Order: sequence, then C-alpha cells, then structure tokens
Amino acid sequence: MQPQIRTTQVNIGPEMIDIGIGQPDASLLPLEIMKIAADHRLSLGNSDLLGYGPEPGDGYFLLALADFLSSEYGYPVAAESLFTTGGSSHALDLICTLFTQPGDIIFAEEPTYFLALRIFEDHGVRVIGLPMDAEGLRMETLEEKLQQIQPKIVYTIPTFHNPTGGTLSAKRRKRLVELSQEHGFLIMADEVYPLLHYTQKPPAPMAQLIDSGSVLSFGSFSKILAPGLRLGWIQAAPHLLKRLTGCGFIDSGGSPNHFTANLVRSVLELGLQQEHLAMLRATYKRRSATLCNALREHLPHVATFVEPAGGFFVWIELPESFDTALLLHEAAKINAGFQPGIRSSSNGGLRNCLRLSFAYYDEDKLAEGVRRIAQVIR
Amino acid sequence: MQPQIRTTQVNIGPEMIDIGIGQPDASLLPLEIMKIAADHRLSLGNSDLLGYGPEPGDGYFLLALADFLSSEYGYPVAAESLFTTGGSSHALDLICTLFTQPGDIIFAEEPTYFLALRIFEDHGVRVIGLPMDAEGLRMETLEEKLQQIQPKIVYTIPTFHNPTGGTLSAKRRKRLVELSQEHGFLIMADEVYPLLHYTQKPPAPMAQLIDSGSVLSFGSFSKILAPGLRLGWIQAAPHLLKRLTGCGFIDSGGSPNHFTANLVRSVLELGLQQEHLAMLRATYKRRSATLCNALREHLPHVATFVEPAGGFFVWIELPESFDTALLLHEAAKINAGFQPGIRSSSNGGLRNCLRLSFAYYDEDKLAEGVRRIAQVIR
Repeated sequence: MQPQIRTTQVNIGPEMIDIGIGQPDASLLPLEIMKIAADHRLSLGNSDLLGYGPEPGDGYFLLALADFLSSEYGYPVAAESLFTTGGSSHALDLICTLFTQPGDIIFAEEPTYFLALRIFEDHGVRVIGLPMDAEGLRMETLEEKLQQIQPKIVYTIPTFHNPTGGTLSAKRRKRLVELSQEHGFLIMADEVYPLLHYTQKPPAPMAQLIDSGSVLSFGSFSKILAPGLRLGWIQAAPHLLKRLTGCGFIDSGGSPNHFTANLVRSVLELGLQQEHLAMLRATYKRRSATLCNALREHLPHVATFVEPAGGFFVWIELPESFDTALLLHEAAKINAGFQPGIRSSSNGGLRNCLRLSFAYYDEDKLAEGVRRIAQVIR
Repeated sequence: MQPQIRTTQVNIGPEMIDIGIGQPDASLLPLEIMKIAADHRLSLGNSDLLGYGPEPGDGYFLLALADFLSSEYGYPVAAESLFTTGGSSHALDLICTLFTQPGDIIFAEEPTYFLALRIFEDHGVRVIGLPMDAEGLRMETLEEKLQQIQPKIVYTIPTFHNPTGGTLSAKRRKRLVELSQEHGFLIMADEVYPLLHYTQKPPAPMAQLIDSGSVLSFGSFSKILAPGLRLGWIQAAPHLLKRLTGCGFIDSGGSPNHFTANLVRSVLELGLQQEHLAMLRATYKRRSATLCNALREHLPHVATFVEPAGGFFVWIELPESFDTALLLHEAAKINAGFQPGIRSSSNGGLRNCLRLSFAYYDEDKLAEGVRRIAQVIR
C-alpha cells in the first residue's frame, strides 16, 4: 500500500478558502533565506552544530537571539536568560512535564489557544477559563477566583491574543505578576506574537518581568520566520531555567534542534531575520486591513469585532442565537471555512463566536472568503 | 556579563581523556554530507519544508526512511508504521507523557541507559531494574516479577545495549512480546544501535514485532548520522501511532523537526546515509578492537568484559571490593575518566562496574585512556 503522501499539516483543496487556518502560506516561507543561512553556516568548517548542543542552547545562537530581541523589544535581553526550545508547543509540553502534576489546575483566558488546551489535557491538568475584556484578562475576576482556587499556573497570551487579537495592558501585566507572587503560581506567558505589530507597538513583553521569578515567557521562530524549523525559546529567572536545563530530556538529547538553531544563528547574524520580519509586517498589515474592511462591508451590524493591531487573528462575535459550529457545515458546502469559537473554549462555550486569520491567504482570497462566510451568516 | 560561550554539550580540557563519553567526536560528524543535502533540498524551490509538517512526519521523508530501514534490516518496513520524533530522548519523553501516569511502574534492565532514568523520574514513574545475562534480560526473573507487580511499560535496549553492549536473543524477544500480551504492558524498545554492527549482525529489531500491538520501537539519526539534528522515529502498530499523531503537542506544532527531516530526506535519497554508516562501522570496529585489546593488555585478570559486536560501549566488572565512583576521583587527577556503574543503576548498585565508550576517541587516545585507568585500578 502506498502511504498517503503529505508534506504539510494543512491539506485542503484549491477551491476551499478556510480563513480559520492560522499559519503563513507558502509564499511567506523564507526558502531563499534558509538557503543563504545554510550555505553560510555549513561552509565555515565547524562540525560542532552536528554534535549534542549545550543544555541552554548554542552559546552564539543565544547571543545572536538576545541581540535581536534587545533591538526589537527596546530593552536589554540577556543571553543567559534564554533557553532554546523546539518551538512553543514544545515549551508548553516541557513546562507541563516539569512544573505540573496530573490534577493540577491551570487558569487560562477564555477564549484561549485551542491546541494549548489539548496539550494540557495530555498532561492531565484541569483548565479553568477566566473572562477577558478590552484590556485582556480581567484582574478582578482572577482575584476572586484566587480566593477559592489555587492554580499551579496562569496561562496567558498577553500580546495580540490567539484568538481575540487583544492585548493585556501594561498595568495588568504588573498586577498579574504581583498576584503570582502573593499566591504562589507561575505565569506561562505565550509571547509568540509581540514582534508582529502592524498599527501600534504593544507594551513590553512579560519577558521583561522575569526577575519576579514567576514568569516563564516563551517565543518562537514559527511566527516570525518559519513553523517547520520547530525552534523557539523560553525566557525565565535562573531557578526556573535550572529546572529546564537540568531535566532528563535535555541532559539526554542536548539542546533541542541544535543544528537548526545554528542555521538560524546565521539568519540573525546576517540581518535576514529583521528583513523578513519587515516583509511579514507589511504583508500582514495589508491582509489584516483587507479582512477587516471586508467584514465591515459584508457583515455590518451582525459581526462585532475589534481590528487587531498585530498578530494573526480577528475574533468575531455574532448575536447569541448563532451557533458557529453549525454554520461551519453550511460554509463548507460553498467552500468556505473558519474556526468556530467553541474550539477556543475550555468549557464548551463561545458558540456564537468565530476565529478568522489573515495569515494564510492573500487579499483577494480573504475578501472572497469573507463574502462566502457572510452569505452563510445572512 | 558575557555568557559562558558553549557550542557543544561536552566541555572538557584537551588533556583529559574521558572514555565515559558516549557520543561521536567532531571528526565523525557529517558536515560535508549535510552541506550537500541542504544545497540539494533547498534548491528545489519547494517551501513546504518550512511550513508545519504533517502529524506522522513528511510523507516523502518517511518513504525514504522506510526504504533505508528495509534495506538495512533485510525485511520490508512500511512507511505507514513510522512516526517522526525529535530524537530518541524525545520519543522517551513523549511516550511517558502519553502512556504513563505518575506512580506507574516501568521495568528496565539493570544496568540501563542512565539518562532514560532521569526522563522517567521527571514523569514521576517508578523504575524497577531486572537482571540480565549473556542473552540479555532474563525472562525467568521477569516472569516472576510479573506475578507480583503490574508494570505499565518494560523498557529495553535489545541490541548492543547501553551500557553492557550485549544483545537480547531472538528467542527472548519473542517471549518478551508474548508476555506483554499476556500481562498487558507495553514494550519500549530503544533501538538506536542495531545498525551499528561491526563483527556480527544482530537479530531482527523488535520493530519487526510491532504487529503484536504492544511494541513501541524507536530509532534515531543521532547514532548513525548526527546527534545535533535531533531527528528520530517511532515504529508501532496503528492504534499506538494514532495516540502519537493525535496528541496535542503534534496537533499544535506539527511534525517535530520538519525542516531537518527534509534535509535528511536528501541524505537518504542521495545514498549518503549508507556511505556514512559504512564509514562509521569501519571506524568504530577499529576503535572497539583497540579499546578491548588495551583492556586485555593493561587489566588482565582484574577486568571482566565481553567484547561487543556493535554499538558504542564496553561494560567492565571489577572485583566486588572496588567502588568505581571513588576510583573516578583518582582517575580525574591523572586526566582520565569513565562512567561509574552506579550511574546506570536504577537502585544505587553496580558500584564495582564501569562503562567505557569507543565512540569519542581515536585509537591512540583510547589506548592511553585505558592505560591511565589501569594505573588507577592497580
């Protein structure tokens, strides 16, 4: 039997426009950049990149990453505060393994990143969703919950949230850290979108607050360079880094993706990451504007949304009577797709919501996709 | 503060000869091969390798891997039975996450791979060590233990064992699988050494027995190509593969190391893996012979060992009165090192044993290393 030959995770026909897909399309993937970087790094005659990497990651890669982050964030990021991961899914998985036990409770935003919920489930931890408003996770509700329940971790996507696109205010970031210290929980800050800002720079990432000792911030090259690299980082205080670098998985296999990290070192050192990021920002800015304009044109009054200042997503609320999971079946009949809100819910809610992304399609397809979805909604 | 610049996991001075190190040295790492493979794959104009990979791994990579394994093992390996991992440490970690709960019991060989013990510990599973003899894990003891205790998993390194170098007989492999079916445990077969045979071909890998439904066999490019790639595979029956491909970590991040897998696809398709493997076999065969000859020359009567037919390791038993952890301190004073037996024990035993490896040093260094160790022992 011939196996089903698949080379990518997304597997849809050419007629389908599924604006639920939250990843870059093939035209945005930096093949030429990776070719230049591979030529560069593999021509230097040093085979260290093919041996086991040091526990936190290759020292020069971490220096290059720290330089890049310092320049982008506008404050100094220390290479010693960084730990190399195999992408942010790996960070989520590793943190669950090392910092939770089955039965532990994680507080997450409602809605939240739908596949983080799946990773938490695999680790047997329970998720309790907490509401957000225009400034992100609501601190009053969090404080109330903390009176009743002791979570091990609060999982937040503070900047250009998946799926809402919203951003936690600077004031609330500080308050969240204070609460973590008062109540003894860790903050898992999923910071994969802060560098994808289009119309407004976000507050400093929660990574700036790692000295508190309760923040594990993680970033990734998946959103700013290429998902297939499976390369990211965690930023944290020394005692948390020590648990990461000292774990059996790292002790056994060395740094995750040591080879790839060395090629990405060249991407950083040759200035190619900054170039690529500028291209992504310009592209996503246009795509986001097109998507939002199409929503205003085709779904006035019925769709409530906030135009995002960055990230990948637009989150839409329809009137309470809608069930977007049912709508999705209708949409499929006319080759349209989106992500129903229920997938981003930790408790089966958000049935009247949907998540759209402007990362995967060009402007024409986005406009046409919205037109089709509007046809189903009306 | 400048960070400590480290580019590899191993970090020892040039005067030290630490024959405990179980990994290839820089001269054996295939820099030129990876350069050819990267040139090849990245020149084809297909950016799929930079997107999220399909859950089991890239279809063409799995086909190339299946072809290679079929040719090496001498029986047909189906691409559909393979799942891509981020190396064998990742396989161990993922299997623990998905198939165990804290408090579960794993039976392992005594001695066993010392860092697997660390990974099990991070997952809160308890390890019980079972004795081995010249044909590997002793089935009678296993059967006795199974009358008293229900393990979730039996972890075995069936071929060219780490650290003993021994191989589980074909008859016992079959018996182990029968027992797994009778008693309802899974077999984690750590099969990273079978292709490194020097003087004698081993029995078929336990991967050949996956149809039983109780075997999770894992292999890796770390031993046959390069550890820094962090690329390996699991072979298992469909219902076990389904748990792997359907987990949150894979659903979120796609196939681990999709980019690297695509470069290694070129290594396989261009026939470079087979060439490299032939070179490794010839080199390790010479190194193993040198190490064993030196042991016979410098430690007659006192060191008991079996010359390995493959793999990386020679396991030495000294008379009961020796404590190799103490000897190690003495050895360090004259710039010699080895791995004391206690590190490979799940219960603080094996104090009179030590593990040597012929993977990291050339023949001169190996002979000199043994001379120094012998000096300390005598």
